[in-house]
Amino acid sequence: MNDFWWQADCRPLDRQAAAQALARQAELTKPAGALGQLEELAVRLAAQQGRVCPQLEQVWIGIFAGDHGVVAEGVSAYPQAVTRQMIGNFATGGAAISVLARQLGASLEVHNLGTVEPAAELPGVWQHQLAPGTANFTREPAMSVEQCLAALQVGRMVAGRAAGCQLFIGGEMGIGNTTAASALACVLLEKAPEELIGPGTGLDSAGMARKVRAVESALMLHGQAAEPLECLRRLGGLEIAALAGAYLGCAQQGIGVLVDGFICSVAALLAVRLNPDAADWLLFSHSGAEPGHRHVLAALDAQPLLQLGLRLGEGSGAALAVPLLRLACALHGQMATFAEAAVQDR
Amino acid sequence: MNDFWWQADCRPLDRQAAAQALARQAELTKPAGALGQLEELAVRLAAQQGRVCPQLEQVWIGIFAGDHGVVAEGVSAYPQAVTRQMIGNFATGGAAISVLARQLGASLEVHNLGTVEPAAELPGVWQHQLAPGTANFTREPAMSVEQCLAALQVGRMVAGRAAGCQLFIGGEMGIGNTTAASALACVLLEKAPEELIGPGTGLDSAGMARKVRAVESALMLHGQAAEPLECLRRLGGLEIAALAGAYLGCAQQGIGVLVDGFICSVAALLAVRLNPDAADWLLFSHSGAEPGHRHVLAALDAQPLLQLGLRLGEGSGAALAVPLLRLACALHGQMATFAEAAVQDR
Repeated sequence: MNDFWWQADCRPLDRQAAAQALARQAELTKPAGALGQLEELAVRLAAQQGRVCPQLEQVWIGIFAGDHGVVAEGVSAYPQAVTRQMIGNFATGGAAISVLARQLGASLEVHNLGTVEPAAELPGVWQHQLAPGTANFTREPAMSVEQCLAALQVGRMVAGRAAGCQLFIGGEMGIGNTTAASALACVLLEKAPEELIGPGTGLDSAGMARKVRAVESALMLHGQAAEPLECLRRLGGLEIAALAGAYLGCAQQGIGVLVDGFICSVAALLAVRLNPDAADWLLFSHSGAEPGHRHVLAALDAQPLLQLGLRLGEGSGAALAVPLLRLACALHGQMATFAEAAVQDR
Repeated sequence: MNDFWWQADCRPLDRQAAAQALARQAELTKPAGALGQLEELAVRLAAQQGRVCPQLEQVWIGIFAGDHGVVAEGVSAYPQAVTRQMIGNFATGGAAISVLARQLGASLEVHNLGTVEPAAELPGVWQHQLAPGTANFTREPAMSVEQCLAALQVGRMVAGRAAGCQLFIGGEMGIGNTTAASALACVLLEKAPEELIGPGTGLDSAGMARKVRAVESALMLHGQAAEPLECLRRLGGLEIAALAGAYLGCAQQGIGVLVDGFICSVAALLAVRLNPDAADWLLFSHSGAEPGHRHVLAALDAQPLLQLGLRLGEGSGAALAVPLLRLACALHGQMATFAEAAVQDR
């Protein structure tokens, strides 16, 4: 297991810029710490961008979609065809993330890793079609080694396309993917399915019971102690692998990442297990409604910015947090110091 | 106690617009409830604005400043001169709220209700100077009846100036004003000072003890059971009265209000005690670091949008939440419906 691309070094944070940014925070005309999490955020962005006053003009959003064989177990409130239909909705600008990207002036690309029905006719969608969705992981590994590596590579490629941007947001779409993410989280965090599994897009209690059984079956079949790449291959999804690859690619290139909800956070956890230094480049946008999310965030020592009860995915929660990052940068860069404003400090 | 201006009717919410907005939410291409608090927010704004798809282009920020006689008791980490210095910082654009107002394209007005040293030379600041700050309420009422009524009236006047805006934000500045707000909250919520009092802008434990003693003295002197106007007069501040007046004026005119932190939330609680229907027009931006804030929010049945550990005031927490309101409106108005996008619902 050597010589995989993601094992190459991540770009180091700029500790000097961080120290200077921290010193600047102490001079701004406000009580020390009065801007709470926004102060740490400005310092972290300074460390990522290597400048005392960071900026967030260019935001890149990559949506990764794929289907999931485990849907055969009755684990989703929505029919599988919705994955492909929503890819169309992204492409034509009617989805939540499409609206948010326009409002933020962010670049948005849609990458279809593999749906049951190909979606070749959809304009503006990158068609990778690595497989007609994953296999049903209650019976066999979700992906072959080749599929998993190819999906990671798509993410890395997309991170490369984001070069020059100051922030990368990954989003996901895939009916059934909270089940895959829950299975991965159970193995990576050594938790029982009951602790992590929730309603996803809106399962009833019978559906929840099927989801727990599906994950239990998968854990029985695939074991509990595999290394992270093998976990991803056996229990993950094409879009989850692509997200992890994108996060790792961003960390290597030095692009800050704003992680979205439960599924993206599981991909972030995988990225950090594959290359721990990637953690320096990850910011966490929100703590969502899915119960497993807080466990994954805790394992990542994450301080999410929003708690709005979101459970949409698509990168939407991360997009919603972008204005907070931008305002944190504006405050950090534009507020007067005590000396400039002739205001007495304590 | 009849015939005060704030007892006149508040504008009623538009229940029909709210029902139509709720129906629209159910048709948008997302699982029901997947946008969490942003869905209720869009519906509430529809009810306030009387249209199915609300907008938030025009935001008005009014800052109210005043000094506090209780500062003589050693209850602030900062010298009293900072009130006037910060008014200057608002006027010259270096304060946090100045930066945020520019970023949001919001109107910003600064109203000095009364500082110990007048600030007549500051350009662009409205000088009301109703008193050289309040009296020390550990020894006498903070305001005379005339001063309190005049301060409420300033707030009403500012609300009138915000006519045509879709959102009003009130901010405050006044060294010592967490002590006044804490005293008011103790009386209005029937809580002991120890339950509510916190470090404000950054008091140490000796300062906190002085703050608790000051509020205890005030409660001994002024009693616990006065009606809200008399509580405000005895324990409040000029800027707190102006905030309450502004909130009441907005509710009567039908302008939605986004309430900032602890001190503004106490002013909102006063407004609701003075005219309960004002509650329909109040949205709550954040739950701040001051421990009393959550008690006040609970009493108002508030669902704040942000929890970022803020403790700055100036309206800054409310300004930080404006992009979430704007994005909630954009999502509500611009997302495709299931029918438009040919996406299957459950």
